[in-house]
Amino acid sequence: MFLNRRIWIVLCTLGVAFGVPTEIVESPDSVNSTLEYDSQFCHPLVIGHRGASGYAPEHTLGSYALAALMGADYVEPDLVITKDRRLVARHDNELGLTTDVSLHPEFADRYTNKTIDGKQMSGWFTEDFTLAELKTLRAVERIPNIRPGNSRMDGAFQIPTFQEIIELIKGLESSQNRIIGLYPEIKHSTYFESLGLPMEQLVVDILHSYGYQGSHAPVYIQSFEINNLKRLKRMTGIRLLQLYDSPDMTPFDQIEKENAPTYADMATPEGLAEVAKYAYAVGPDKSYIIPRDAENNLGEPTTFVHDAHEAGLKVHPYTFRAENAFLPTDCRNKMYPNLSSALGNLAAEITAYFNAGIDGLFSDQPDIPVRIRTGCLRNIN
Amino acid sequence: MFLNRRIWIVLCTLGVAFGVPTEIVESPDSVNSTLEYDSQFCHPLVIGHRGASGYAPEHTLGSYALAALMGADYVEPDLVITKDRRLVARHDNELGLTTDVSLHPEFADRYTNKTIDGKQMSGWFTEDFTLAELKTLRAVERIPNIRPGNSRMDGAFQIPTFQEIIELIKGLESSQNRIIGLYPEIKHSTYFESLGLPMEQLVVDILHSYGYQGSHAPVYIQSFEINNLKRLKRMTGIRLLQLYDSPDMTPFDQIEKENAPTYADMATPEGLAEVAKYAYAVGPDKSYIIPRDAENNLGEPTTFVHDAHEAGLKVHPYTFRAENAFLPTDCRNKMYPNLSSALGNLAAEITAYFNAGIDGLFSDQPDIPVRIRTGCLRNIN
Repeated sequence: MFLNRRIWIVLCTLGVAFGVPTEIVESPDSVNSTLEYDSQFCHPLVIGHRGASGYAPEHTLGSYALAALMGADYVEPDLVITKDRRLVARHDNELGLTTDVSLHPEFADRYTNKTIDGKQMSGWFTEDFTLAELKTLRAVERIPNIRPGNSRMDGAFQIPTFQEIIELIKGLESSQNRIIGLYPEIKHSTYFESLGLPMEQLVVDILHSYGYQGSHAPVYIQSFEINNLKRLKRMTGIRLLQLYDSPDMTPFDQIEKENAPTYADMATPEGLAEVAKYAYAVGPDKSYIIPRDAENNLGEPTTFVHDAHEAGLKVHPYTFRAENAFLPTDCRNKMYPNLSSALGNLAAEITAYFNAGIDGLFSDQPDIPVRIRTGCLRNIN
Repeated sequence: MFLNRRIWIVLCTLGVAFGVPTEIVESPDSVNSTLEYDSQFCHPLVIGHRGASGYAPEHTLGSYALAALMGADYVEPDLVITKDRRLVARHDNELGLTTDVSLHPEFADRYTNKTIDGKQMSGWFTEDFTLAELKTLRAVERIPNIRPGNSRMDGAFQIPTFQEIIELIKGLESSQNRIIGLYPEIKHSTYFESLGLPMEQLVVDILHSYGYQGSHAPVYIQSFEINNLKRLKRMTGIRLLQLYDSPDMTPFDQIEKENAPTYADMATPEGLAEVAKYAYAVGPDKSYIIPRDAENNLGEPTTFVHDAHEAGLKVHPYTFRAENAFLPTDCRNKMYPNLSSALGNLAAEITAYFNAGIDGLFSDQPDIPVRIRTGCLRNIN
């Protein structure tokens, strides 16, 4: 546990190359060693949400590199798919929100209306573009009013493929001399499968091909759906995380089932025990852990973390953001409390969650949790 | 010239390992192959000034990574030195401008007054700190009023060593599958030598130890002084660039000489011919090439580029910056012409310089010249 980082990297490489086969890693006995594995990272784990999306347009190589260089343990790409079955990183398959596609007259006829996970959407969609076409677009900031500093980089980056992200992280692992993990989310699984573009096997294949195998690999795969996680459990030993949307919602792949569970159902001790059968960890909206009160301040913690731990699950809530627009009232910038883009005291909000016993978190400003956590086994450069 | 990039990287690696010894590379015959070497980059060359300092605090690993990922051919660290003879990247040896040193009570007694290159300075100075001490500081934005978006990252990064920068670039070369060059400047050479902390041998040694040798290596070493460049010419085959400060100034290492040249003298055809004896390229303030007129707009180009080319020198002017505060009047942001932080039309200013025949440029927003130059032999990812 206190070995030099170089030694850990060597061990990890050996582990990847000669490690325990998937089947055995999935056995209950392997959980302890997995827990030990994560202790090589600092605690709680810091996941750079969409990279360091508080500082650069989300899901760009620039954003991921900033997150890694700020000391994030993991970087989080959201994955969608192209017409020619290439995995690329966007939060949505709709491209108008985060690219300059609307300025490309050659793609004007791709503008269309779709129903995705039950929601009506208008725009341009990744599944209607080849990768070569997507590569002619440029990323822009999603929320320019809240992040004008990010908008300065509009046009500077392309849409990255998952492979390019893995290559970037491998290069940074080498230069930073530490393990940097990947935390991909499979978006709209059922929707893409209905188009004949299922993503799960592609995600697993590329991860396995880069040597990420078993629960010791520094990877989590996340989804808001259930069935695909259960399928993934049979396809790979890589750790899986069940995401939780609003309590009243039902995972999209479940809605046609009788007695389909809501996320609230899945957050009960019984629901968590069911999730623990296929997932290693849960990723709830942070309000599952500390709800806000009537003044939009942090209230009393719920039993969610305790219940999840009882079920044997790690807890990695989302999303911690430093701008006033997202903060509890008490944490807002004192000088500019009404300016949505002003940075407030995210450290205070995060500290409350650390105290609530979380095991990791997703943050758009990963430098902040990295700096305030204690008990790190490694130095951050 | 049209070989695949992978092949170039292999050739480069072989070249470094088994390449022509320094002495031969320095011979006039080698110049042609050096010119061919740079044609592997796009033309004109884009040098990420202090990284991508328009988007992240200057001289941080985050800033350098952004520059490289935006497609800059070279990243530019300014080098100063610590008490224990370690090379670190800061624009100035004074630390108060770009770090949180003033918030460290344990260093309050290091605050002092010095005369550096003839200028009175007050503050905290790198030469009074060990590297371990510097590593407890955090970088902050130098010009927060003009770059509030950068200030969001205050505290996120440490001061990097030159070695850490080289390692970062090596890792990014691997992931980006292209050559990424280094463009270090030796700051205050005479001053540091007077303290018993000469920098030149250290810079050369670390570059040579990483395989950067001869004029084929993707490296330039720059200085505003003359004597150290002449010494470097005997120490290494790495290409050298003579920087030009204000025309009425004299390089600091020359001021006690009889008939000491001003930079204006060094910019005449005769002066450039002298510089060409030791330097491969010149780095003038951009006003040497296109002066501003009475309305602060771009005037008529001078003969500087022509004269430098006649002397056999490449021309890499500095510094191209997108904020109103730095732009010609006509290029300022049309909507917010009086807001110093607003981004204007840097592309227009750069285009005028491309048309004036420059061979490269230093930019705080390297994505902009990367996107507007034409005739690239490689794709930018």
